[in-house]
Amino acid sequence: MHRGGWLESPSIAFETWGTLRGKGDNAIMVFTGLSPSAHAASSVENPAAGWWEEMIGSGLPLDTDHYFVICVNSLGSCFGSTGPASIDPLTGQRYRLKFPVLSLEDVAEGGYIVAQHLGLEKLHTTIGCSMGGMSALGFCVRHPGFSDGVILISSATRALPFSIAVRSLQREMIRQDPKWLGGNYDPSDPPITGQRLARKLGMITYRSAKEWEQRFGRERVTAEGHAGDPFHSEFSIESYLEMHAVRFTGQFDPNCYLYLSRASDLFDLAEHGGSLKSGFSKLKLSRALVIGVETDILFPLHQQQQLAEGLSAVASEVRFVPLACIRGHDSFLVDMDAFRPVICSFFETCGI
Amino acid sequence: MHRGGWLESPSIAFETWGTLRGKGDNAIMVFTGLSPSAHAASSVENPAAGWWEEMIGSGLPLDTDHYFVICVNSLGSCFGSTGPASIDPLTGQRYRLKFPVLSLEDVAEGGYIVAQHLGLEKLHTTIGCSMGGMSALGFCVRHPGFSDGVILISSATRALPFSIAVRSLQREMIRQDPKWLGGNYDPSDPPITGQRLARKLGMITYRSAKEWEQRFGRERVTAEGHAGDPFHSEFSIESYLEMHAVRFTGQFDPNCYLYLSRASDLFDLAEHGGSLKSGFSKLKLSRALVIGVETDILFPLHQQQQLAEGLSAVASEVRFVPLACIRGHDSFLVDMDAFRPVICSFFETCGI
Repeated sequence: MHRGGWLESPSIAFETWGTLRGKGDNAIMVFTGLSPSAHAASSVENPAAGWWEEMIGSGLPLDTDHYFVICVNSLGSCFGSTGPASIDPLTGQRYRLKFPVLSLEDVAEGGYIVAQHLGLEKLHTTIGCSMGGMSALGFCVRHPGFSDGVILISSATRALPFSIAVRSLQREMIRQDPKWLGGNYDPSDPPITGQRLARKLGMITYRSAKEWEQRFGRERVTAEGHAGDPFHSEFSIESYLEMHAVRFTGQFDPNCYLYLSRASDLFDLAEHGGSLKSGFSKLKLSRALVIGVETDILFPLHQQQQLAEGLSAVASEVRFVPLACIRGHDSFLVDMDAFRPVICSFFETCGI
Repeated sequence: MHRGGWLESPSIAFETWGTLRGKGDNAIMVFTGLSPSAHAASSVENPAAGWWEEMIGSGLPLDTDHYFVICVNSLGSCFGSTGPASIDPLTGQRYRLKFPVLSLEDVAEGGYIVAQHLGLEKLHTTIGCSMGGMSALGFCVRHPGFSDGVILISSATRALPFSIAVRSLQREMIRQDPKWLGGNYDPSDPPITGQRLARKLGMITYRSAKEWEQRFGRERVTAEGHAGDPFHSEFSIESYLEMHAVRFTGQFDPNCYLYLSRASDLFDLAEHGGSLKSGFSKLKLSRALVIGVETDILFPLHQQQQLAEGLSAVASEVRFVPLACIRGHDSFLVDMDAFRPVICSFFETCGI
């Protein structure tokens, strides 16, 4: 592991779409945000819609008629890859907080192991969204030249204190839930209250005030069944948060969440060489595309600008596309009409 | 009470500075944000620094050599005014959640009762900061013409869904603390964990990402005494939040916080007549000053713009001053050098 410790026989879960050509000439590797699985798109084996269903497939921007697309479940997550919720083969017990400190460089290394497993000697493009953009940077800095291009979406060279504050508070919400039990919770009775609160704070930072002003305003919900509770959900925005919190809870292991959240705070491209400049200088890339969203408060637009400027020093073709989407950080998941043409145009110029 | 119910013999705590002239010709009434007491400035009776110490006093913008300044502790609060933590004289028990629904119109009425008690027939100016700006609007709409001028600082005609979401989550943090006990907590053992979390979220929305980027960046704290806790505070921003949370906890009664927080969500000038336009039309004012801060995410600048535009239809002299302070919503408490000259210039043109 990047910051010490090691794992016995870890697993990395991944899915692929399309057909591999050569030793990776048409291979695209996707690193995810904090919570998604490797199931980015539906497939014969798993027909359920994936988290980037409208982006990956025949005729879509990541066109599986031409490209071989790989999506990796982050090391430390709980959807098939080894993480704090996994059984340590050396003890027969879950790792829990005995899992070593997780870094996004380890997540990146998970992707590299998958590439090796598939016999790849190169990648056409590495793509990372949100936290995954930092994992993609980690991949490119540790394996310079392995990937020819990179697409970084709503990401950063490193977290700013606002984002660290938000994530630190989310972690504290989970850790303060009496059911967390210092990480030793019963998996069938996890700290869902803390998870619910953390998810609500997540939603507050994933979307935008502007979207909510247009979408909800001061719209009310009916107060049925709330007699006697002076603090029930009265505004639509409150029931919207509640709906998202309920939907998320139970899907994600709390300790895995804590480790990945902390890893997002810790990543810093500047640690690779002592400065951002030297971190960028370690990259070997032909093409880069950086996309950001004006209303993103978690990975704000000036961080995308910084990424694009840093990449310009080391890649010959760098395009920075700021989007005026109003749905904030989550736009890459929900505002496909804005993102698709930008990503399409990147691959068109690559000429596969 | 504005939304039903009533209180038996409520108290309203207030402090005054300077000397009253006439029936209120030189009287300024200050409505506070959610958490401050009436102790806005030091005095002979209480020499401790007040929350607006650098604004109120001899030679300061609210110049006590010329003006008679009154600051009111909001009804529903816990610093002398009747609130959920007070004893209901009819039962001998604390009100707790039996306190009627609190509205900022009730807070405004608390100020009016103080004015009557002091024999005032008019006010020179009503001032409100943050939530207090909405209380000041409530005061002016319920008593048109009583106050000749108004100064609204980092406030709004009504809360937007982003702010409602933040406050709703803060309330849930407190209510989910097992020690809250449905509002029936032991006053000597209150739900401080929930309060700590709520205060941290407060700080995240009271300051600005830009300030923190400049002030903290990715600065680390020493990790002494944290061996074995993989989630200890590592970044300075985390210990900064912790320091603020610890400082606040124990100062404010949790149920009072819940009521005032909810009242902030509920206030809507448009309820006074059916639309914002008709709400504004009920005001009778000569002068208005609206101040906002570019980096405020809780009461964003476009809400100050809306206030100024609405007031322009009903007051002859309206000034809107957007400030480029970087410390967000809290700027009116911590960036005195920016606010003092603006408020000074308002009173200079009034000619007392």
